[in-house]
Amino acid sequence: MVVMVGLPARGKTYISKKLTRYLNWIGIPTKVFNLGQYRREAVQTYKSYEFFRPDNHEAMQIRRQCALAALQDVHNYLSREEGQVAVFDATNTTRERRTMILQFAREHGYKVFFIESVCDDPDIIEENIKQVKLSSPDYTGYDREQVLGDFLSRIQCYELTYEPLDAELDSSLSYIKIYNVGLRYLVNRVQDHVQSRTVYYLMNIHVTPRTIYLSRHGESQLNLRGRIGGDSGLSPRGAQFACALAGFIRSQDIRDLKVWTSHMKRTIQTAEALGVPYEQWKALNELDAGVCEEMTYEEIQARHPAEFALRDQDKYRYRYPKGESYEDLVHRLEPVIMELERQENVLVICHQAVMRCLLAYFLDKSAEELPYLRCPLHTVLQLTPVAYGCQVESIFLNVEAVNTHRERPQNVDVSREPEEALRTVPPHY
Amino acid sequence: MVVMVGLPARGKTYISKKLTRYLNWIGIPTKVFNLGQYRREAVQTYKSYEFFRPDNHEAMQIRRQCALAALQDVHNYLSREEGQVAVFDATNTTRERRTMILQFAREHGYKVFFIESVCDDPDIIEENIKQVKLSSPDYTGYDREQVLGDFLSRIQCYELTYEPLDAELDSSLSYIKIYNVGLRYLVNRVQDHVQSRTVYYLMNIHVTPRTIYLSRHGESQLNLRGRIGGDSGLSPRGAQFACALAGFIRSQDIRDLKVWTSHMKRTIQTAEALGVPYEQWKALNELDAGVCEEMTYEEIQARHPAEFALRDQDKYRYRYPKGESYEDLVHRLEPVIMELERQENVLVICHQAVMRCLLAYFLDKSAEELPYLRCPLHTVLQLTPVAYGCQVESIFLNVEAVNTHRERPQNVDVSREPEEALRTVPPHY
Repeated sequence: MVVMVGLPARGKTYISKKLTRYLNWIGIPTKVFNLGQYRREAVQTYKSYEFFRPDNHEAMQIRRQCALAALQDVHNYLSREEGQVAVFDATNTTRERRTMILQFAREHGYKVFFIESVCDDPDIIEENIKQVKLSSPDYTGYDREQVLGDFLSRIQCYELTYEPLDAELDSSLSYIKIYNVGLRYLVNRVQDHVQSRTVYYLMNIHVTPRTIYLSRHGESQLNLRGRIGGDSGLSPRGAQFACALAGFIRSQDIRDLKVWTSHMKRTIQTAEALGVPYEQWKALNELDAGVCEEMTYEEIQARHPAEFALRDQDKYRYRYPKGESYEDLVHRLEPVIMELERQENVLVICHQAVMRCLLAYFLDKSAEELPYLRCPLHTVLQLTPVAYGCQVESIFLNVEAVNTHRERPQNVDVSREPEEALRTVPPHY
Repeated sequence: MVVMVGLPARGKTYISKKLTRYLNWIGIPTKVFNLGQYRREAVQTYKSYEFFRPDNHEAMQIRRQCALAALQDVHNYLSREEGQVAVFDATNTTRERRTMILQFAREHGYKVFFIESVCDDPDIIEENIKQVKLSSPDYTGYDREQVLGDFLSRIQCYELTYEPLDAELDSSLSYIKIYNVGLRYLVNRVQDHVQSRTVYYLMNIHVTPRTIYLSRHGESQLNLRGRIGGDSGLSPRGAQFACALAGFIRSQDIRDLKVWTSHMKRTIQTAEALGVPYEQWKALNELDAGVCEEMTYEEIQARHPAEFALRDQDKYRYRYPKGESYEDLVHRLEPVIMELERQENVLVICHQAVMRCLLAYFLDKSAEELPYLRCPLHTVLQLTPVAYGCQVESIFLNVEAVNTHRERPQNVDVSREPEEALRTVPPHY
């Protein structure tokens, strides 16, 4: 269990959602349990901060019931469903509440890792309220000033009883304390691999506004011929796209833009047209199709029909003989994601399967959806972090290219006919 | 610059050396500058702790001169040689000394990251003195009790003027404070990728005694035929080795031994004989020889003579067409090393090139030596951490196997004759 601690408007939900997205992406099934949602289900209309006063005994009773219901759901998720990590997103600001959670965890044999977000900078808190509380279901119909006023009063209710994690009293607990959105961290008793990864991730993320651009290379010689993989150079239209991309990037006028490519010719040739320095990452190389490298789908069907069907059955986990699966690729891309989190503005020039994996991370797509995400050639995706998620804009740069997207065919059985297997193959020369 | 801070016997030299070894291994040229060595060169015979008394003005003068000399060498290393990180291993326990270092760094445009080791557990401190100070050149000819007494007095000299990094006063500095060998960490203002990696590494290492066993798979079918790479199963002697390994591991009677293999048949078949659970790591797969997979060296010479010579010229950096280099492999193995650091007793069943990379990490071997390290088949290397390094024992399990070690030939020129290129190829069928 990951248990959040902190006053309202300290980014607990932001951290919960972001960490959950990351853990799911690296293959650790994780789910957020947000106490605010339980409370809103129990008490349908929110009136004012008075609900959160420590001397409001009726409300306190309801809030305790909500916490118990949430913990019961945590238990179901971790013991009856496939869950491995449950993130309990609530204030948990009193030692009494945390003791209750620890007691619950001990009963069921769950490890607990606390994440406390501490912030004493009023500007950061106000910005947080504006970013995410104005649109909260609690405040439908309220005006901006009312929300700010009520929410600050709500924070004061919690301040009355707030007991932060304490170096002495809580020295036996496992936790990270994050001060002022990552200026400083205190890390106590990390117990295992998942906690260690969690700490590393939390220490690398930041909230500075920035833009990430994802693009595939320009159309390649092998794209034209409908052949997968390989290491060919750009087609004439691919070279045209590289120029269009250069113009687009110039027009965006981005401060300190980093450009990353793979080690493959088609991404390097695309980056060369930009006339700016770029960094080559081997980890960004396209999924290795092993024995099927440089084949058309028709050839794969002819030579390895069973493999072709197995891939359609579970495209995320299917590994080409002597090659890779999407799952392998996610594993290989983990350091890229970590460095993307650290950086600010970045343009990543990569490949179809690679771009699907990166996009799935940012848009929180499941392993099932991931291998079918649409990442057409000559189209830049512009990602901007907003509130708890990421806004995507898709920009086609107006240079035609072949379609390389093959949908999952209806029949994925090994005994299917070749024409059924090939029904969704896009046209090529 | 990485600048250590802490009283004597707090593991500063241990951390300095270990971090330096890690950074060098991942390709960031790093060097330790140990102030004790400068002092011993300046004052050839150490008499007693009196030298370290803060009121010993003559000695203070010498110590300051040593610090300046060390900083000058740091400057040479970072500006004139290939150095990227200099680790300044000294107590640096006063704010005055740290201000001098910061001033020096500012003048030359170096970033500074402090690592402070804080320890108040007398058992840990005494253990440290026994582990590394008894054998210090300062104490040649002293007996055990004398060393302990003098060293504790030396620590007291430093305690008089010790000013730890302070949350308020040093809030603008970048640092990590490590409490009681990793029980707790305080991390402040991490500035860049190298600092982030450093923090992650320091948070994963531990000092619990343990043993790491490295072994290659049993002899494979392709080993017998002198063919590199591929994914063949074990030869009859390879299977015999797997049984011998099982017996050896049983005889060692190790608490909670983890067993790791690659995804390749020959390591999995070897692990199967042990009859215990094991974990498969794709990152442990053998170096991908690309177009040369499953060839004999004679065939590589015949079909790709220029490639074969280029590889001999720079075996660490050479990348097989469509394959990998040793440098790529080190990059791929980094998460394995990080997890090995986290774990206690582990048996890694891997491959020749992989084992060379892992061994180079533990034994601090250079990129030039790494690809020629001797890792014969059917031989287990038993690594035990001692003081600042690692003790290795090589255990041949008495099952014959082919030799797969090809020495660097004398002539590495592209124009060499085939017999010159093949002179060091070990015999095979």
